[in-house]
Amino acid sequence: MTTLLALYRRPDGGDEALATFLRRYHAEHVPLVAATPGLRSNRIQRVEQALGGDTEFVLIAAMEFDDRAALDAGLASDAMRQAGRNLREIAPGLFTLLVLEEDAGPPDA
Amino acid sequence: MTTLLALYRRPDGGDEALATFLRRYHAEHVPLVAATPGLRSNRIQRVEQALGGDTEFVLIAAMEFDDRAALDAGLASDAMRQAGRNLREIAPGLFTLLVLEEDAGPPDA
Repeated sequence: MTTLLALYRRPDGGDEALATFLRRYHAEHVPLVAATPGLRSNRIQRVEQALGGDTEFVLIAAMEFDDRAALDAGLASDAMRQAGRNLREIAPGLFTLLVLEEDAGPPDA
Repeated sequence: MTTLLALYRRPDGGDEALATFLRRYHAEHVPLVAATPGLRSNRIQRVEQALGGDTEFVLIAAMEFDDRAALDAGLASDAMRQAGRNLREIAPGLFTLLVLEEDAGPPDA
């Protein structure tokens, strides 16, 4: 599996701005992501706490694809392009998108 | 499920420092985490790329527990205390630990 991990930082504007982001995220963004070809699952989790410190992250979504080729095809789809444009509107400068692959263990000695 | 998400940043010292961290992470840290009571799984993934930018993150581990109570019991265990001490040795100042809960949807209007 290849994971597209989206990490969302807290918007300026307090609880109201956060609530607005969350409403638009669910109403606008999640349906666009769900229409992405090749998407196997989208697990959305809230950041409840940072152990031993603070964090600017409030929400994390893990989108799973069969492999990197499936992810790249998904990213090139109309649904994901629309999702990207939507994200830049509802969370400008507030997200990080990471491509993750299963860890293959320690490097050779 | 409650997730303990560990995000690891790249150490100073180039590829050699990263290889050293990864070797010690697998040899020392992962076995300690595996001994944590209540741990359901520990999915370890490498950060291959940041889309549309750079990232300091190199490795992400998602440790799953049945619920927050199980996570808290796990955190209080000898195994997890040792794992925490080990982490401060092999990745000092280079990790963030987030507690994640399944997203409950948008806030009430």
